[in-house]
Amino acid sequence: MSRRADGRADDEMRAVRITRGFTDHPAGSVLVEFGQTRVMCTASVEEGVPRWRRGSGLGWLTAEYSMLPAATHSRSQRESVKGKIGGRTHEISRLIGRSLRACIDLAALGENTIALDCDVLQADGGTRTAAITGAYVALVDAVAFLNARGKLADPQPISCAIAAVSVGVVDGRVRLDLPYEEDSRAEVDMNVVTTDAGTLVEIQGTGEGATFSRATLDKMLDLAAVGTERLFEAQRAALDAPRPASTAEHTAD
Amino acid sequence: MSRRADGRADDEMRAVRITRGFTDHPAGSVLVEFGQTRVMCTASVEEGVPRWRRGSGLGWLTAEYSMLPAATHSRSQRESVKGKIGGRTHEISRLIGRSLRACIDLAALGENTIALDCDVLQADGGTRTAAITGAYVALVDAVAFLNARGKLADPQPISCAIAAVSVGVVDGRVRLDLPYEEDSRAEVDMNVVTTDAGTLVEIQGTGEGATFSRATLDKMLDLAAVGTERLFEAQRAALDAPRPASTAEHTAD
Amino acid sequence: MSRRADGRADDEMRAVRITRGFTDHPAGSVLVEFGQTRVMCTASVEEGVPRWRRGSGLGWLTAEYSMLPAATHSRSQRESVKGKIGGRTHEISRLIGRSLRACIDLAALGENTIALDCDVLQADGGTRTAAITGAYVALVDAVAFLNARGKLADPQPISCAIAAVSVGVVDGRVRLDLPYEEDSRAEVDMNVVTTDAGTLVEIQGTGEGATFSRATLDKMLDLAAVGTERLFEAQRAALDAPRPASTAEHTAD
Amino acid sequence: MSRRADGRADDEMRAVRITRGFTDHPAGSVLVEFGQTRVMCTASVEEGVPRWRRGSGLGWLTAEYSMLPAATHSRSQRESVKGKIGGRTHEISRLIGRSLRACIDLAALGENTIALDCDVLQADGGTRTAAITGAYVALVDAVAFLNARGKLADPQPISCAIAAVSVGVVDGRVRLDLPYEEDSRAEVDMNVVTTDAGTLVEIQGTGEGATFSRATLDKMLDLAAVGTERLFEAQRAALDAPRPASTAEHTAD
Amino acid sequence: MSRRADGRADDEMRAVRITRGFTDHPAGSVLVEFGQTRVMCTASVEEGVPRWRRGSGLGWLTAEYSMLPAATHSRSQRESVKGKIGGRTHEISRLIGRSLRACIDLAALGENTIALDCDVLQADGGTRTAAITGAYVALVDAVAFLNARGKLADPQPISCAIAAVSVGVVDGRVRLDLPYEEDSRAEVDMNVVTTDAGTLVEIQGTGEGATFSRATLDKMLDLAAVGTERLFEAQRAALDAPRPASTAEHTAD
Amino acid sequence: MSRRADGRADDEMRAVRITRGFTDHPAGSVLVEFGQTRVMCTASVEEGVPRWRRGSGLGWLTAEYSMLPAATHSRSQRESVKGKIGGRTHEISRLIGRSLRACIDLAALGENTIALDCDVLQADGGTRTAAITGAYVALVDAVAFLNARGKLADPQPISCAIAAVSVGVVDGRVRLDLPYEEDSRAEVDMNVVTTDAGTLVEIQGTGEGATFSRATLDKMLDLAAVGTERLFEAQRAALDAPRPASTAEHTAD
Repeated sequence: MSRRADGRADDEMRAVRITRGFTDHPAGSVLVEFGQTRVMCTASVEEGVPRWRRGSGLGWLTAEYSMLPAATHSRSQRESVKGKIGGRTHEISRLIGRSLRACIDLAALGENTIALDCDVLQADGGTRTAAITGAYVALVDAVAFLNARGKLADPQPISCAIAAVSVGVVDGRVRLDLPYEEDSRAEVDMNVVTTDAGTLVEIQGTGEGATFSRATLDKMLDLAAVGTERLFEAQRAALDAPRPASTAEHTAD
Repeated sequence: MSRRADGRADDEMRAVRITRGFTDHPAGSVLVEFGQTRVMCTASVEEGVPRWRRGSGLGWLTAEYSMLPAATHSRSQRESVKGKIGGRTHEISRLIGRSLRACIDLAALGENTIALDCDVLQADGGTRTAAITGAYVALVDAVAFLNARGKLADPQPISCAIAAVSVGVVDGRVRLDLPYEEDSRAEVDMNVVTTDAGTLVEIQGTGEGATFSRATLDKMLDLAAVGTERLFEAQRAALDAPRPASTAEHTAD
Repeated sequence: MSRRADGRADDEMRAVRITRGFTDHPAGSVLVEFGQTRVMCTASVEEGVPRWRRGSGLGWLTAEYSMLPAATHSRSQRESVKGKIGGRTHEISRLIGRSLRACIDLAALGENTIALDCDVLQADGGTRTAAITGAYVALVDAVAFLNARGKLADPQPISCAIAAVSVGVVDGRVRLDLPYEEDSRAEVDMNVVTTDAGTLVEIQGTGEGATFSRATLDKMLDLAAVGTERLFEAQRAALDAPRPASTAEHTAD
Repeated sequence: MSRRADGRADDEMRAVRITRGFTDHPAGSVLVEFGQTRVMCTASVEEGVPRWRRGSGLGWLTAEYSMLPAATHSRSQRESVKGKIGGRTHEISRLIGRSLRACIDLAALGENTIALDCDVLQADGGTRTAAITGAYVALVDAVAFLNARGKLADPQPISCAIAAVSVGVVDGRVRLDLPYEEDSRAEVDMNVVTTDAGTLVEIQGTGEGATFSRATLDKMLDLAAVGTERLFEAQRAALDAPRPASTAEHTAD
Repeated sequence: MSRRADGRADDEMRAVRITRGFTDHPAGSVLVEFGQTRVMCTASVEEGVPRWRRGSGLGWLTAEYSMLPAATHSRSQRESVKGKIGGRTHEISRLIGRSLRACIDLAALGENTIALDCDVLQADGGTRTAAITGAYVALVDAVAFLNARGKLADPQPISCAIAAVSVGVVDGRVRLDLPYEEDSRAEVDMNVVTTDAGTLVEIQGTGEGATFSRATLDKMLDLAAVGTERLFEAQRAALDAPRPASTAEHTAD
Repeated sequence: MSRRADGRADDEMRAVRITRGFTDHPAGSVLVEFGQTRVMCTASVEEGVPRWRRGSGLGWLTAEYSMLPAATHSRSQRESVKGKIGGRTHEISRLIGRSLRACIDLAALGENTIALDCDVLQADGGTRTAAITGAYVALVDAVAFLNARGKLADPQPISCAIAAVSVGVVDGRVRLDLPYEEDSRAEVDMNVVTTDAGTLVEIQGTGEGATFSRATLDKMLDLAAVGTERLFEAQRAALDAPRPASTAEHTAD
């Protein structure tokens, strides 16, 4: 089998690194790296929920994704300067929020809000999948933070782990975890979000110029399962280490 | 098998109606109805392409989706009044554009732009899938309009038909073409965009509260194929009728 | 007397059609057509009033006007995409609101709000006058809807009918109900809103390039009275038919 | 006849003052006062026209109206801070522009743009009519400025004078030039823009709560003619004085 | 010593004029002139404070600065039309607010808000320093207004006078109170806000192209002290005159 | 002398760390840390200059400052979501741009633009001074990048080093490099930007509640000189190491 430009096999992930306690203020703060892609994922906790949810007894989890202007190969304009958020940013923020809500029991959370911020420091393909994978770890830390302070309605609100990976068809071959160089010319591009129980949370597959058969879809899903298995291992390894202290302790109490 | 609230079987589409020439000005204008869901889909043609594409010899196709404020059961606020477009609107507009670009050869289109506007007059679930299905018919009329005026680089820019349908898991059952009443409480919700050649253009499946197995995914894709087959028939029937005259002729020449 | 381009006499209205129950969700939903001009007018009811009016015992009526992008001969940009509402849209929305408030006793309405949405599906001149004329019919249905549910402080809040028509000077001749082709080159353009008691609610007359004498103003007002008489007949005919059921019933109770 | 709160007769204008050369930079700069209402009207000249008009040989005239936050009795929020311009501001800006374009031959102006800015320093009713009346004087100075520099295609682009006044029905009586105290409780409110040749440029009459008969309309138009006659005198008196020097000379050459 | 373009010595202020009661509605209204620079400074009083401050027992003082479009030599675009406030406007608004808060005891003010609006009618350099100097006088009048109505927690909330002046290095010479002609080519530009007790409230010094030594900084501060001494005299002279009546009395009680 | 909360002497800087090559895409990428404050500073190069500068032969340097939402102790709202940039952000962005333009000869740069992005990953006081100090190092790398490709009009466009530090009065004592805990309760707060030639680029001193004497100003400037001397050493140490490769090479050629 011919190798990819970066030397990987078709079914091989890039190097995955997950660093907890990357910054000190948020309840959870994680730097996640898929090769050259680096995303800072934080989980901030706030007492109370948005107005439309008050009195429901349910918590809330929201997510925002953003790309630093110099994260891409050629600098992109800052959305705060443009004065509006682009369609792509909205779409990914919504995807991250939906994906992480799939693993958390919002009733167990009580009327607290967790805000996940995923800021891309460097982009080399797969930023949304790295963001979901890292945000899960930040979420676990934020939940532990709330639990240690007796703020949860139920001490075990998280039911499973969540990870995401991209797969696609490039040069006619089904490949795992596409870097920018492959992503930008992929014929088919798919993001798969799964649980560590083996079920699917979200799939988004798009033909870019080409369309794809059910057989290709099946191959892509098989590869995605290989990739997320590797990601669940990396998450577990990161979470087995002792949890770094967060200074959020001082402001949340 | 138990019937659904509206009397349909699980694998049954709502009544589909496609009305060409719904308004007179655009090159293509279609009213598409999936039961109570009604979307006005227009295709407007413009000479020239956006700046970033000029001189490429390629055409462009873009789409915008919008919901009239009174389309929903309780009136929603107008996005023009809020001053910004919500994430959901952006996401659907981008989906429609991507889906329709899958069937058209932008080189054959020449440096012309086709703008698809999908305005929901009444919403009862499946508005994005109805929009894609209707927009395809408006696109065919717009291409015929351009062709009749010798504006195309190649007279056959459309390679296949495009249709879309929603499927989901409701009350534990896999069902086709969800109305609002089912969609709002679906455990899994998926939109499938396909070609009449049987290939997939886009799939977006989301667990809402629940996650789903590969086996469920397969059942949903099977049902979607049943639904889009029915939609391709309706498109063909509508397009077999003589094309209504468009007054766009007067302004485009 | 020479005929106009569309064969009408100077004092002749275009064909007027008023369709009640055009969509199912709002309390009132009307499609109004003045020739090729088609406007969807809906009246949505909401319990409560805006904050600045709470506790006053008075209801509120507001209106929003919008043009679908493909309604005009050449596609116009969507105001939600531009991120702001243009001056013309604001001006017409305010005119519609003021005009319809002239026929309703807001104390009799109780602390309820009626939102009138006038969305132009196809524009061929006179969209604001068609909108006012159709919105009146939607308003009557919305009031009946509220009345049937015992929500009104007084069962007869509407004191008169409201209709509007355009008049102008084209080719040196005073003409009634200008289509786009005449409106775009009119020397004087006037919109007249009247009650079926023969009084004026609003007049807005503008010289476009030319100015006009009091004598011309008088002739224009005479023609406007001919036109609105015709419109009041059409409104009565539409309202004499049985009122179509609205599904708003299910959500408003 | 009973007197009004400020001692005037029903057909009497407030004190009118027109000060030319109020500031030094613009080609025309006028402070106009109708009693306590004070509006600074400037006319700035710029070579060239907006893009959509280039190459037409025609000039352009545009107007913007704004209220300083402390101009009103209780401070209003700044529209630049709100981030959008309200409907009323748009409507008045458009009215001023249309009204002044009625007196100028844009072909004679050549491809130059005149921007009229009407900033209300103090508001006591009738700000839009004072603005139009003052803007005319600033426009005359700006045209003289251009003429002195040989920038006009034709040295006499202005065909008539323009002035505007409000009339209304207050306490059942038709009255001229309403101050805030009357305007805020008027039953009918009308703004009339006229030429010194006796023709009408624009009329906007609105029933506020009440509607009005053709007979009342006629009486209002009679009073308006009395008022604008007084305004044309004040404009002529101001313009007969020598024109103050503008420092715009230094930057426009 | 060589004279400046306008005939002044390096350490000489332009003519300073302070007119109280410039408009009638606000509690304080001042026109301040530094030569050709003219700024209208108003102080509006409002009962209550912004939400984040409620219940604190403290008052609030806020400021907004704005330039009329025709104030500058060539007309600038209105920020309300652009839809956002530029960096320079924000920065100056914040500076004015901070500077005036330095002289007022917000506890003595009680839960009242004073809004300072500084609108530049004509700009010829030093608009922010003129604004601060004039705003102080408007503030004194607004405080007297509140005091006369028994609204203050303590009758003497103002502890000192505040004035501001610009200094800079132009043509290698340290100069006081720069007009536009000097400011636009200054090598160093500094704004100094001081109290009449001789202390500093704020200094902002910027090298424009050039940097500057501590010795130059000292000379600039010496000149600034000369200038503000002159400004404190002008403030005292203006405030020694009887206070003009404000119509704000009628609305604030 | 009593120690500060973090154990430092009044004239002692926090630990300063400067990491070059923090990310790979920009021509210069630096992580700068002043204690717990961490700012990512990137310098992106682009051929060409903004439109208003084209054809001048001069280059341009611009800067943008932003705070990640989770950088602060309690999460702040994203400015891209609010849809506008706050006054503080604008002010700091402008300060950074002005400060760095003081050390670069824009003619030597040729018609190239350097964009400095300073994104605060973690905030603990002094973010703007850390940003300026780090941006200088990123700028040096970006200039070397351009030089290596022969893009500069003159190979030595940088004339001096730039660094910035905060000083203030806390608990009545003049202190260097204030962390958040001190900054939030400082009586006087000053930011000083200097060159390594000992001259001043910018000083911004503000009394917060208190005012300050010339003697205090002098003491603050003395301390600032101590601090920036330490920063110039850290910059030199960082720049003496070999320059890390930037992948910007691949896209800029």
